[in-house]
Amino acid sequence: MSRKGTDWMRETAPGVWSGVIGEPEGVSPLEWMGKEPLADALAAMETAGLPFALGELTVERRKGWTLLRIPLEEDEPLYGLGLQLMRMNHRGRTRFLRVNSDPKQDTGESHAPVPLLISARGYGILADTSRVVTFHCGSTVPRTESFTAERTPDRNTDSSWRATPVSPFLELRLPPEGCRIVLFAGPTPLDAVRRYTLWSGGGALPPRWGLGFWHRVPTLYTASEAANEALEFRRRGFPCDVIGLEPGWHSASYPVTYEWARERFPDPAAFVKELGSHGFRINLWEHPYVSPQAGIYPALEPYAGTHGVWGGIAPDYTVPEAQAVYQRQHEDEHVAIGISGYKHDECDGSELTNHAWMFPAHAEFPSGLDGEQMRQLYGLLFQKMTDDLYRRCNRRTYGLVRASGAGAAPMPYVLYSDLYDHRQFVRALCSASFSGLLWTPEVRKAVSEEDWVRRMQTVVFSPLAMLNAWGDGTKPWSFPGTEALIRHCLELRMRLLPYFYTAFARYRYEGVPPFRAMPLVEGFAEAAAAYRESVRHTKTTLNTTDGAYGKTAVREWDDQYMAGDDLLVAPLFAGETSRDVLLPPGGWYGLDSGVRCEGGGVVRLDCPLGHLPVFVREGAVIPLMPALPHVPKPGAKVPVEWCHFGNTPGRGVLYDDDGETFDYEDGRQVWLTAEVIRGDDGRWKGTSTVERGGAETSYLYGLPTWRYGLERLPESP
Amino acid sequence: MSRKGTDWMRETAPGVWSGVIGEPEGVSPLEWMGKEPLADALAAMETAGLPFALGELTVERRKGWTLLRIPLEEDEPLYGLGLQLMRMNHRGRTRFLRVNSDPKQDTGESHAPVPLLISARGYGILADTSRVVTFHCGSTVPRTESFTAERTPDRNTDSSWRATPVSPFLELRLPPEGCRIVLFAGPTPLDAVRRYTLWSGGGALPPRWGLGFWHRVPTLYTASEAANEALEFRRRGFPCDVIGLEPGWHSASYPVTYEWARERFPDPAAFVKELGSHGFRINLWEHPYVSPQAGIYPALEPYAGTHGVWGGIAPDYTVPEAQAVYQRQHEDEHVAIGISGYKHDECDGSELTNHAWMFPAHAEFPSGLDGEQMRQLYGLLFQKMTDDLYRRCNRRTYGLVRASGAGAAPMPYVLYSDLYDHRQFVRALCSASFSGLLWTPEVRKAVSEEDWVRRMQTVVFSPLAMLNAWGDGTKPWSFPGTEALIRHCLELRMRLLPYFYTAFARYRYEGVPPFRAMPLVEGFAEAAAAYRESVRHTKTTLNTTDGAYGKTAVREWDDQYMAGDDLLVAPLFAGETSRDVLLPPGGWYGLDSGVRCEGGGVVRLDCPLGHLPVFVREGAVIPLMPALPHVPKPGAKVPVEWCHFGNTPGRGVLYDDDGETFDYEDGRQVWLTAEVIRGDDGRWKGTSTVERGGAETSYLYGLPTWRYGLERLPESP
Repeated sequence: MSRKGTDWMRETAPGVWSGVIGEPEGVSPLEWMGKEPLADALAAMETAGLPFALGELTVERRKGWTLLRIPLEEDEPLYGLGLQLMRMNHRGRTRFLRVNSDPKQDTGESHAPVPLLISARGYGILADTSRVVTFHCGSTVPRTESFTAERTPDRNTDSSWRATPVSPFLELRLPPEGCRIVLFAGPTPLDAVRRYTLWSGGGALPPRWGLGFWHRVPTLYTASEAANEALEFRRRGFPCDVIGLEPGWHSASYPVTYEWARERFPDPAAFVKELGSHGFRINLWEHPYVSPQAGIYPALEPYAGTHGVWGGIAPDYTVPEAQAVYQRQHEDEHVAIGISGYKHDECDGSELTNHAWMFPAHAEFPSGLDGEQMRQLYGLLFQKMTDDLYRRCNRRTYGLVRASGAGAAPMPYVLYSDLYDHRQFVRALCSASFSGLLWTPEVRKAVSEEDWVRRMQTVVFSPLAMLNAWGDGTKPWSFPGTEALIRHCLELRMRLLPYFYTAFARYRYEGVPPFRAMPLVEGFAEAAAAYRESVRHTKTTLNTTDGAYGKTAVREWDDQYMAGDDLLVAPLFAGETSRDVLLPPGGWYGLDSGVRCEGGGVVRLDCPLGHLPVFVREGAVIPLMPALPHVPKPGAKVPVEWCHFGNTPGRGVLYDDDGETFDYEDGRQVWLTAEVIRGDDGRWKGTSTVERGGAETSYLYGLPTWRYGLERLPESP
Repeated sequence: MSRKGTDWMRETAPGVWSGVIGEPEGVSPLEWMGKEPLADALAAMETAGLPFALGELTVERRKGWTLLRIPLEEDEPLYGLGLQLMRMNHRGRTRFLRVNSDPKQDTGESHAPVPLLISARGYGILADTSRVVTFHCGSTVPRTESFTAERTPDRNTDSSWRATPVSPFLELRLPPEGCRIVLFAGPTPLDAVRRYTLWSGGGALPPRWGLGFWHRVPTLYTASEAANEALEFRRRGFPCDVIGLEPGWHSASYPVTYEWARERFPDPAAFVKELGSHGFRINLWEHPYVSPQAGIYPALEPYAGTHGVWGGIAPDYTVPEAQAVYQRQHEDEHVAIGISGYKHDECDGSELTNHAWMFPAHAEFPSGLDGEQMRQLYGLLFQKMTDDLYRRCNRRTYGLVRASGAGAAPMPYVLYSDLYDHRQFVRALCSASFSGLLWTPEVRKAVSEEDWVRRMQTVVFSPLAMLNAWGDGTKPWSFPGTEALIRHCLELRMRLLPYFYTAFARYRYEGVPPFRAMPLVEGFAEAAAAYRESVRHTKTTLNTTDGAYGKTAVREWDDQYMAGDDLLVAPLFAGETSRDVLLPPGGWYGLDSGVRCEGGGVVRLDCPLGHLPVFVREGAVIPLMPALPHVPKPGAKVPVEWCHFGNTPGRGVLYDDDGETFDYEDGRQVWLTAEVIRGDDGRWKGTSTVERGGAETSYLYGLPTWRYGLERLPESP
């Protein structure tokens, strides 16, 4: 059976086409999330079509699979497919989108394999299914016409030979029963990402404290050890907002109880309150597999799958009764005493990891889902359940999760991994931005002072700035020679909080990822093409994962990214003192060096260890606040300083709300615009105006001060 | 649907039960091979039953899969599943048995993932299907009874915690349409392997020259460069029997033509003849994907799959017409001029390798097979087609292949890999022996002289002793300081040829693998258990792939193996000067050191670089021949020397035939037994008698000479 796309796809929102192939089975990720598209925001986007006619999209169905085929252009990079640590551009590769907790090979498997592909041609395609799908990203060459001798290079003698010939098709191998397909128009890749995000319900807006610094303490710490370590941050003057507890807070772990270990935490409520009085929130580690020692075990057992994990049960939380049991216990024992959120670990098991611990694909669950489906959905279940829990209390949460999928954009959860390659961590930050995902390149340990500083410089420019010392027992001051540099990083994180919080508000309302890969930046494609042309005939060592066969691999610029609209982060890795950076058009200043570079091409960045590898856009007007020890409590006011960079007029934005609740959804929020122009007297002049928003002109911030014509980051006041 | 094993399995040969679940689709590996079981040899084995009742084996069928379940004992190691580089005992793991050309992770994927599991309890189970199957080797824990708090350790505090709890079941996830299941009785694991091998048609008996030394020359060598390099072996006195040509012999490669590159090989027949006159055979590299530039392309195109590879076609050789085209061309242009065999490369593609080049699983082939099935079968197709080709000329071949599967035991092909970890290479040699596979730990290059020597010491004790210099241009004398040591290794290979050839004859007729892992050796289980007991309370650094969670991993002894019945090889790896060796019961002598060790436990082997890490069994009577430059041509005679080791009476076996043809299948062969006893005068006395065989008492060998009571390897005469 073969059919064209015209008769089953229809436009369901501006620039969004949707259609169902076959008869999908079980709940899909988007059905589970159940969020309404942000229709107004979608409608506010420019109208756009797809870069191909729907009739060019064909579907074939066989007994074992459904195949969807879309034509590709010869030079069409393909991005997305969720969190990908090994590769950002998947053109020429086959991607097997199975959840995998240990994604060491470049197969597409991942903690969060979102079946959403973003083409550089300016469109996106989503397969909304809880089954594993395979994207052949121009990796298959159907014999649609005869091969010819002329077009076949001889590897013996022809250096232009490539392992993967150019394929004219993107092929999606979908479940045999079918699934829903959704197409997102551009015209740019960023527009396609925005449409996906808005259609999923908009991006996550974390509570303000979520953007402070996080520290996770060693797993078996007692309440007093954890409190001592937290207070050490205050004594040493390192900002910190969240203390994370690891497995040891449970009365038993692997499987877990969700109950406090009274020998280590005799009075959890007092512990949370005490640390709260010092400005700390508490985040709790957990995983899905419930111990027979847990009080809720008997209530959950009827809803468990056929197979256990670590001697515990794997409940089917798509059953409302099971959800209720989990949520009630969490509400009573954690949320009610002030716990701020969770780290959902181990929900990304697959059967092929080094240690087999996950339930198998053939496990069966009370709702009718099988193990394959439940594994693909599991990370989403916990995100949704705990987000709902806090939403019911009108408190925002922010946490961590090791598995995610389609439709996760509205979820205030940040992905992480047990892998630890710094370069891969940066690539993950880039790749996540195509798929409505957030990622933290968490710091755990370092092989050297240099490695320590370089990793910290990256993590403070990420969705969640965290030192995870659960196993290594590190502290920000663990490498004494770097203490000042690390303090500088953490303080900068706090100073930039108004800027980052605003970036997240744009994610929430406009679908623009707060941290984003270069292909999502205007002018990137042209600058990258110019660079390719310039090095075409030179031998260069490229930063690439291509080995073996590839001779002239293309640099993907998957080692740098935008943090908000005006900061470009180009991390250095241990061993480097300089690197190439691709700058979008315009002027750019080294944040620490003050050196101005002209964009629209590639520049060489010399970056000693003490300098942040960050550029600021000329004309940026960035709101900074003081480097407080932690985010102020509701009601407090802090000064805000608008910092204007360079020698051209500029513009900046500041979003503000109460930072803690969902009242912003009822209009209790404000957007300020800062405009800097040169007055008739030749002096800079700044004005801030309320662009849109509710009754108040500010929640957190006092009246602004101004700095003009900066070339580098000003000292902290 | 669920049913028990009693109503669909029946005993089809002594100790072999077979039954079909469902309605299998397409040709299975054993159907493709089409070999008759060696009924007489099977009948000659002791009768035995299975260690469980057939009724304990259950089958469940669902829409997407068929599940077969067999009970496991708590302490029951599980071996086999084809070539496995990362692990020999799969207990507690899930094995995804898909062909994969780059099996870097421990998932079960492999060049040769044979769905045959050998339990230490003494049975084997085979899923005869060309689809990918998953073996859950005690990695799934069904909730057959409620979990209890008592049986659930707390990882916070209990060091006995394990990532994978003990599972009571082996679960096979089979294709939804079903497949044939075959069970092989023991009582020992070796017996199960023997039954599988005999039932598959018996093991491969290579031509005698195949057991000499092999050297593959750089890919773009011309005929005269290849000839010069071959003759350099003669000038320097290094034995060599086979020269391998790599892609450059083709007129175009990737895709290939199977035609000679006339600019490099102007007169192939003369080249083969010239080298033949110096005692060299020529082996040709090839792969399956046919170039439009090939003369046979138009004839093959009608039988090609829907997807191309490297701009060439992937023919469906299950279609007899396609086979005929391939075989005729190979016969005319290679076999007829004296080419001795092939190296079948790249037939192990999967869609998830780093470079996507293989046809996808959804490719379709004229016979009705899909891409998944064809990929699982492809290595077998080429082995069978080329073996048949030589068989028709009554000439034996011996070659290399990078993919294999079930039923391959009778095929004279040896597996290899682009991976190159020495320790993994030894493990592969061990693991292959459970599944009717042969493996070469080929040498290509080395990081040091030590690494070079240690790798050579391993490869000369393997099914195919080869230096593969296609990309590195190495020669046996590339590390000048080691030249004498390497010559010693290669000469020993030649001297042991009667012994190795006899080991292969036992493989052919009795199903006993010529090189085999320790669990296939009598007394291993007891010695290993005694060792485990002895180290239970000591902290030891173990050779194990277990990381992360495993605290007291069990040593698997997958780094040593038997070569024939009487030599135990315990390779050292660069950086080591000594190692632990588990010796089966009896006395053992260091082959070079002459030091006697008592077996039945673990001994420490001190092994300087100049010593081979090999033990010889006390009482062994091993036939040696002189270290000739190459295997003699038919009609020549060489002396044979029976070497008796140690201080006990002994026994040895020598098989002999013409070494080149299949006449041995018509009885033109001889088995000699050597018996050494102590005479009444206290002196050793040896007798050799014809045990069974044809008219002649010897083909290659002259009258034997004797050496008695040896403690170490005698010098070459």
